[in-house]
Amino acid sequence: MSLLRSLLFPHSVAVIGATPREGKVGHAVLSNMLSFEGDVYPVNPKYEQVLGLKCYPSVLDVPSCEMAVVIIPARAVPHVVEQCGMAGVKVAVVISAGFRESGIEGLKLEREMLKAAQEYGVRILGPNCLGVANPRIGLNATFTATIPHAGKVGVLSQSGALLTSIMDWAYQMKLGFSAVVSLGNKADIGENEVLEALREDEGTAVVLGYLEGASDGRGLMRVARAVTRQKPVVFLKAGRTGAGSKAVSSHTGSLAGSDVAYEAAFGQCGILRAYSLEELFDIGMLLSAYPELKVRRVGVLTNAGGLGILAADACVLHGLELAQLSPSTIEQLKRVLPPAASFYNPVDVLGDADAHTYASALSALCDDEGVDAVVCLTSPQAMTDVEAVARAIAAVGSKKPIVACLVGGSRTEQGMRILRERGVPTYPYPERAVFSLGRVRTLREGWDEDEPVRFKVDRASVRTIIERALELRKSTLGVEHIELLEAYGIPTAPSVLTRDIDEALRAASAIGYPVVLKVVSPHISHKTEVKGVITGISDASELESAYSALMARVGRYAPDALVEGVLVQQMVEGREVVLGISEDEQFGKLLMFGLGGVYVEVLRDVVFRVSPVGRSQALKMIRDIRAYPLLSGVRGEERYDVEAVAECIQRLSQLAEENPEIVELDINPMVVRREGDGCVAVDFRATLRR
Amino acid sequence: MSLLRSLLFPHSVAVIGATPREGKVGHAVLSNMLSFEGDVYPVNPKYEQVLGLKCYPSVLDVPSCEMAVVIIPARAVPHVVEQCGMAGVKVAVVISAGFRESGIEGLKLEREMLKAAQEYGVRILGPNCLGVANPRIGLNATFTATIPHAGKVGVLSQSGALLTSIMDWAYQMKLGFSAVVSLGNKADIGENEVLEALREDEGTAVVLGYLEGASDGRGLMRVARAVTRQKPVVFLKAGRTGAGSKAVSSHTGSLAGSDVAYEAAFGQCGILRAYSLEELFDIGMLLSAYPELKVRRVGVLTNAGGLGILAADACVLHGLELAQLSPSTIEQLKRVLPPAASFYNPVDVLGDADAHTYASALSALCDDEGVDAVVCLTSPQAMTDVEAVARAIAAVGSKKPIVACLVGGSRTEQGMRILRERGVPTYPYPERAVFSLGRVRTLREGWDEDEPVRFKVDRASVRTIIERALELRKSTLGVEHIELLEAYGIPTAPSVLTRDIDEALRAASAIGYPVVLKVVSPHISHKTEVKGVITGISDASELESAYSALMARVGRYAPDALVEGVLVQQMVEGREVVLGISEDEQFGKLLMFGLGGVYVEVLRDVVFRVSPVGRSQALKMIRDIRAYPLLSGVRGEERYDVEAVAECIQRLSQLAEENPEIVELDINPMVVRREGDGCVAVDFRATLRR
Repeated sequence: MSLLRSLLFPHSVAVIGATPREGKVGHAVLSNMLSFEGDVYPVNPKYEQVLGLKCYPSVLDVPSCEMAVVIIPARAVPHVVEQCGMAGVKVAVVISAGFRESGIEGLKLEREMLKAAQEYGVRILGPNCLGVANPRIGLNATFTATIPHAGKVGVLSQSGALLTSIMDWAYQMKLGFSAVVSLGNKADIGENEVLEALREDEGTAVVLGYLEGASDGRGLMRVARAVTRQKPVVFLKAGRTGAGSKAVSSHTGSLAGSDVAYEAAFGQCGILRAYSLEELFDIGMLLSAYPELKVRRVGVLTNAGGLGILAADACVLHGLELAQLSPSTIEQLKRVLPPAASFYNPVDVLGDADAHTYASALSALCDDEGVDAVVCLTSPQAMTDVEAVARAIAAVGSKKPIVACLVGGSRTEQGMRILRERGVPTYPYPERAVFSLGRVRTLREGWDEDEPVRFKVDRASVRTIIERALELRKSTLGVEHIELLEAYGIPTAPSVLTRDIDEALRAASAIGYPVVLKVVSPHISHKTEVKGVITGISDASELESAYSALMARVGRYAPDALVEGVLVQQMVEGREVVLGISEDEQFGKLLMFGLGGVYVEVLRDVVFRVSPVGRSQALKMIRDIRAYPLLSGVRGEERYDVEAVAECIQRLSQLAEENPEIVELDINPMVVRREGDGCVAVDFRATLRR
Repeated sequence: MSLLRSLLFPHSVAVIGATPREGKVGHAVLSNMLSFEGDVYPVNPKYEQVLGLKCYPSVLDVPSCEMAVVIIPARAVPHVVEQCGMAGVKVAVVISAGFRESGIEGLKLEREMLKAAQEYGVRILGPNCLGVANPRIGLNATFTATIPHAGKVGVLSQSGALLTSIMDWAYQMKLGFSAVVSLGNKADIGENEVLEALREDEGTAVVLGYLEGASDGRGLMRVARAVTRQKPVVFLKAGRTGAGSKAVSSHTGSLAGSDVAYEAAFGQCGILRAYSLEELFDIGMLLSAYPELKVRRVGVLTNAGGLGILAADACVLHGLELAQLSPSTIEQLKRVLPPAASFYNPVDVLGDADAHTYASALSALCDDEGVDAVVCLTSPQAMTDVEAVARAIAAVGSKKPIVACLVGGSRTEQGMRILRERGVPTYPYPERAVFSLGRVRTLREGWDEDEPVRFKVDRASVRTIIERALELRKSTLGVEHIELLEAYGIPTAPSVLTRDIDEALRAASAIGYPVVLKVVSPHISHKTEVKGVITGISDASELESAYSALMARVGRYAPDALVEGVLVQQMVEGREVVLGISEDEQFGKLLMFGLGGVYVEVLRDVVFRVSPVGRSQALKMIRDIRAYPLLSGVRGEERYDVEAVAECIQRLSQLAEENPEIVELDINPMVVRREGDGCVAVDFRATLRR
């Protein structure tokens, strides 16, 4: 059975460690639980009664108990969790701290607690967490001072302190919650199960989250894919930088995956990533009002030209359009606004506009079929009755999303309150209002649109190569094993590993000139550093001199290297790209794509995805690099075979998934020919896990 | 004499159009003026007395009057301004609207008004403005409902409505003003003179501005250079995008310069550009507390690990460092914090920290010599007495800048108020606190550090070329005039314009092989489009076939083009860059630099500066492109002669300044050789203004 019922809709809750002593967590939790619609049982052997409720000496004594909230010293927790199991508790919310986060002893206690829980099938939220709340049924098993409003936002957080901030903010913003879940140490229940519960919960329309590190990145993607198809999910992921990640590990001991993997993963499974707490709040406010918002063409209404300009700028910068108003809308505006007003988007009602004028103009904009949403801006000018304007905006009955923005301070406070109370997302600055619309617009953009294809490949050959290498205790594979790519259907330039000049000459004439020579040595991993590649060899005599030159160079630059031979390879021409595999601790295999040479080395113009990827995602990878025009044929450039590259990315993805020993792989370069002519891998390097 | 005294420190003010009728602007202004320390004279023939002051029938009747505030119908303004002149008024603040912004009739009135003003030497602020205030002397010649606090922030705004928002915000933030100036239509006094006045005013420590378009871009840069050497200037420039600019022109009729020019100009003269209203406010709040702030190493103090991580991330993203705490600071922290706290930056005082613990830890951080500023974060947890913490933070006596951040809503409001009242810049989100520090860090980064050099050049030759072209009604110059660059000391690849194959052969052997052939025709402006360039010609026989091939191609691709000849040019090798001149309506000549080929065409990796530039600015241009590593020799790339390119940029700058007819010029490509070997212009194209 899913976690949903016991975690968010328990019938009965025991508060273990309840106490009448004010200022104690056990007091705060029980006080908060007095609003619960179900049964509440304080548990504490010291008291007969707490806060007017009968108090039980042990959880074993309570009549029935689906959830237990545990607020007792850490050392007593394992035993109490065992009792919970015996008492039939389904979920224990362990608020107590003093576990893994506090060192070795705590880690032991956490393990003992888990063992007891698993024995009886008790699920643990926490430990070291703020608790859980579902304001719709009065469940508030937390110790926060802020009582959450009921609503449709589900929130989960890996930091209890941050959750306090979120709840306090939401209280002020009149934002209601369907669920508030503090994950704490995630000893048992993690973000994935909570996400799944929030997906099942029909009363949750939007999910907001604060995450420091995913416990199971692949699982997160799987769950999130299902959730985001039903309701928007916005996550703030901390630890974007090295400094931040360092702070993360000293804080909770969780392993922060590399940011590039999170960035890719969130995009692929439709999680909208907030890059700051403000963004989480701003986007959260918008989505809580309009969970199904779709917007591209924005109408802007203002009583201050300057604010209108700032909003117009922001629209363009965030990928939105200023709506083109229809003639009938403009007619309508001309009827309700003074002649000096601006009737084109942004519509300027002028500084002396009263509430009625605002409302009439706003209605006209909302009625325009070419307008998806309206941003309604107000500066508190001498003649402006801000509160009346706020009430008027809130009262406009419209199916169009309206976002308000009152720009000021002391004179706009009350108006903001009025609008928020009436459920209109309200921002202090025009740019943030528009930014939030812009971010929501991209909500579904990064999605995996199709399932990865399973190509028919020659997996056996690859297994043989890998296993032989591992038997020989080799952890790298070089260009001499480029056939590994062929086995997965990734075309390579024809090549032959040769031992002497005669073999090389034979190979070259079989392949056909021009050819390239590449030194092959287990001790030379970067061939260009020892000048171990010679290109553009156009006939046998050139081959002979190139061959001896190559040997001389290697002797000079890498005198101790064991040379296994020289690879003779067909010389191919086209645009160079790089494809790669790497491995991330949280998300497993990542795929990389970029343009070759300076684009990847110097400009770092590369993109990553979590593997596997389907065709549409592979094509998106290619389109996402800045230098994409160099492949797509715009501005006088040639069109290269992007489809062929996308197929190679998918095949590489399958290679990565089916051969876990490959921890790194570079196809650098892969040469892409003109559209329709395919692409071929020219050089190759892989690292295996021994 | 400067404008400072009469605009900001008038002895006496007449309020022309004062009225006892509430809700009228003439009533609002006079009410606001009652706080004025000098003499106030209501002027209105209808009344004997207004708001308890003797009222005069005309400005000619008042005893003395340095400033007049004009709030009467537009049609009466020219005459009244004339009277002001006769009465000895120095500055007329024309609040009345109905001038240029309202059409042709208004424009006429504005011109009449100006004529009257100029006749008597009266300076005009506005018309169509909010007025002017200097709270230090109780001067509030505006009609806002918000009474500004006195302080050290000078603010100027091209939008009165936006200024209302700024004043209302500042009131709430307890931010005080030295001056508030609404520019209105800028018929006479513009931003440059106001900036100059604020520079002279010793009581102004920081300047904030909102601008839609500069009236005199070059003048702005000149004045701003002087101001920013004394005090920080932060400007929000609206109309960044096409959509925004369109809204600007329909709003005030001011010409919005292209954004790239503003971006360059602000950087060069040290104006810190805010990219949103929120940024203007956030940076303004920080600078008003610490006008001379210099910060690189940041200490972070928090009661919530998550907030600490977000701040740490933000530090790295905004170019700041997390300070490395000294051993003695860590010792000190260990004495005052519980053992489970984190003693390293970010310092985590834990969720149950009281005000005293906060204050002790904050003092320890402030005492560390390796800490430039401290960001103090608080989440309102169950045990947190937010107000007490706020008071404790404010009470820490330290010379180090402290920035606070209370993250929440209803429970943090009061704490924010306490901190702001005590002058501590306080933000609702950690990222904004750190962002503001990061922006201020870059305050002096883009400055012109040295004066442009005046090179000895052969200006006469260039004048001759230009004048001859203009006589011939030619508006473009091509590669055949590349000598124009030589005249200004910009090296070019040796080349000879030839009329036939014999001349070409002679030229090539004089220049030395390899050479390049380029077709020269007034009708072919993009030679590559007609394949009009052949490179890599290595001897006479190749030249002969290339020459006829070139002619055949031109005949095929541009059969109607008049061919003037073929340029034989030395073939040079190196890294290709592009240098250019363009012209901006507001700022005049702009200089452009980028890497050649796809970098400029596809990746748009170019930078602009307003000319003229000195050596350090020219070098900055080169360093500012993303692809700079391709020139600087990092990551295995060669080092190219960046100094030579910087000199060419300076010489091009002088060419642009001394030859105003050149509205566009491209050196594309200029080939840069290895460090020390210089660079040469290879192709060239210029457009002249006829």
